[in-house]
Amino acid sequence: MSDKVLVQSRFSRALLARIGEQFDLLDAKGRDPSEAFARDDLAHVRALVTMGNAPFGGAEMDRLPSLKAIVCYGTGYDGIDLAAAAARGIAVGNSPAANAAAVADLAVTLMLAVTRRLLPADDYVRSGGWAGAKPSPWLVAGPGNPGRKVGVYGIGEIGRKIAVRMAAFECDVAYHSRSRHDLPYRYIDSLAALADWCDVLIVAVRAGADTHHVIDAAMLERLGPQGYLINISRGSVIDEAALTAALRNETIAGAGLDVYATEPHAPDALTAFPNVVVTPHIGGHTADSHVAMQDCVIANLRAALDGRPLPYAVA
Amino acid sequence: MSDKVLVQSRFSRALLARIGEQFDLLDAKGRDPSEAFARDDLAHVRALVTMGNAPFGGAEMDRLPSLKAIVCYGTGYDGIDLAAAAARGIAVGNSPAANAAAVADLAVTLMLAVTRRLLPADDYVRSGGWAGAKPSPWLVAGPGNPGRKVGVYGIGEIGRKIAVRMAAFECDVAYHSRSRHDLPYRYIDSLAALADWCDVLIVAVRAGADTHHVIDAAMLERLGPQGYLINISRGSVIDEAALTAALRNETIAGAGLDVYATEPHAPDALTAFPNVVVTPHIGGHTADSHVAMQDCVIANLRAALDGRPLPYAVA
Repeated sequence: MSDKVLVQSRFSRALLARIGEQFDLLDAKGRDPSEAFARDDLAHVRALVTMGNAPFGGAEMDRLPSLKAIVCYGTGYDGIDLAAAAARGIAVGNSPAANAAAVADLAVTLMLAVTRRLLPADDYVRSGGWAGAKPSPWLVAGPGNPGRKVGVYGIGEIGRKIAVRMAAFECDVAYHSRSRHDLPYRYIDSLAALADWCDVLIVAVRAGADTHHVIDAAMLERLGPQGYLINISRGSVIDEAALTAALRNETIAGAGLDVYATEPHAPDALTAFPNVVVTPHIGGHTADSHVAMQDCVIANLRAALDGRPLPYAVA
Repeated sequence: MSDKVLVQSRFSRALLARIGEQFDLLDAKGRDPSEAFARDDLAHVRALVTMGNAPFGGAEMDRLPSLKAIVCYGTGYDGIDLAAAAARGIAVGNSPAANAAAVADLAVTLMLAVTRRLLPADDYVRSGGWAGAKPSPWLVAGPGNPGRKVGVYGIGEIGRKIAVRMAAFECDVAYHSRSRHDLPYRYIDSLAALADWCDVLIVAVRAGADTHHVIDAAMLERLGPQGYLINISRGSVIDEAALTAALRNETIAGAGLDVYATEPHAPDALTAFPNVVVTPHIGGHTADSHVAMQDCVIANLRAALDGRPLPYAVA
C-alpha cells in the first residue's frame, strides 16, 4: 500500500527530512495541494501533516479519498472540521504537551515583561534617557508579583504549567475552564467572574467556535484599568478591534500577545503601544519543543500508515 | 535629645514624607552633606539614611559625631565601611528581604527575555519583518527551559527566590555560595565549577571587595558560547570590559543586566548588542517593594533614635 504523506503547511527542513526518510513525502510548501500535485498522486495520500490552525474541512478531505489521518503539528487543531473527519473515518492527531513548557514559558515571559515595562526600561538605558536623567512616565513603580491575582483561562497542559510558574512568583492563581479539576488553584466558574477577579488574565484556552471573540470589549472592561491581558492560545479568542480600543482608552493597563487574528500580523495600531509586547507566534518555538513535536508527528504517521490507532489522537 | 536624620542619597517623595513626619529631616538631596548643611546641624545628626552602594567611610562618619546608625535603603550595604562603623559604635541597618521578590522577579524576567530573544522578536513584529517574511537570524529556535542548567551565584533571600522560580520552569538549578545551605538544590563548591556546569549564570551575590570583578574574562570563557549571564546584584561583580569583549567575540550567548559599574549607565558598546537586555537598576522597583523597604527604614530609624538595637541590622 502507498505510504504517501502530504505536507500542507510550510515546515522546517528538519521535520521534512524526518518525514522524507521514512515515508513518500509530497510537500505542498504552503500551496494548495490540488495545484501542487496531480490528482492521481493525491488519490494515494494516506496521511496529511498540517498546522492545526490551517482550515481543513470536508471538501478538502474529499480531494484525498485514501486519507486515514490528519496529523497537526503543535497542540491546536482548531482549523480541522472534526465532525467531517469522523464521518469519513479519518483520525485526527496533534502533539499534546510536547510544546506545553515552551508555550507556558513564553506566556510567563510576556506577563513579566509587560507588567514590569521591560521594553521601555531597556529603551530608557539604550537611548540615554537614564544617563540624561530624563523623566520616564513608563517607569513608575507598579504592583509586584507577590499576592498579584493571576487568572488562567483554560487549564490544559499549557494552562497548568502557566499556573505552576505563576504560583512560584508568589502570585494568587485562579483558573476558569469548562469544568473544575483536582488542582491546587481556585476555580472560578465563569470567564466573566475570572476577569472581574484577576489583575492579569492569561488566555490558554483551546480555540474553537465556542471561544471566538470571548475576550470582547465587555470582558476587557471587567479586567479593568490595572489589568493585563496575555494571549498565547489563538488570535481568534480575542476581538482585536476591542483590544486596540481598550489600550487606546486605557480600559486595561497593557497586553502581551503571541497570536493574532491574522498571521503574520503586520504593524498596525495594536503594535504601536509601548505597553504591549508582541511576539511572532513563537510560543512552541524552542529546539527541544520542535524535536518533541516532530516525535509526535512521526509516531502518529507511523501508526496511521500501519493501520493502528494514533498514539497522539485529539480528544 | 535630637532626632535629626540626615538623608544623603536622592529618595522618593514618599520616603522623605514618611521620615519627615516622624523625625527632624535634613535632606541633602544627593549633595555632599558638608556643603548642604551647617556643621552645627550635622553635629546633631543621630541617624543617616543612604543607598547601600554610596561610599561612606570613617572620614564621612567623623563629620557626624553624634551618629548612632547608618540605615541603608535596600538589601546592599557595599558602600559602607563596616569596620569603621563598628569602631565608632555606629550600627548599620538595611532592608533585608523587603525587595527580594521584586529583585528575583526581575532576574527571571531578564533571563527569560534574553534567552527567548524577546526584544528582537517584538521588534520583528513591530518593524514589519514578520509580515514581510524577512529572515531573522535572532529568531532561530534555542534551547528551552526544561532541563536547562541554571547556576545561582549567591543564595541569600534573593538567590533563594530566584532558585524557586527557575525550578518552577523545570530547570536544573544549582548554586554556589561561601557555604552549603539546607536547600533542595545542588551545591557547587566554586564559582568556576558553577560557570563550567551551567547554561545560565545568575549573579545574586552580596557585593563587596571579595566579589569585585570575580566575573572576568576567564569566568565568561567557562560560561561558554551557549551561556547567558544575568546580573541583578551590583555592577562591581562583573568586569564590564571583559563582558563587552565576550559579547563581541561570541564567547557567551547573551546577557541580562540591571546593574552596572557606573550608574546611571550611558549608551555604549555594551548596550548596543541585540542579545543583551538592559534595565536601569529597577530590581527592587515595585510599589509593594518600596513600601516594604520604607517600613524597614522607619523601623530602623525609630530604634536608633530610641537607643534600641536595629530590628534590621546587617549581619
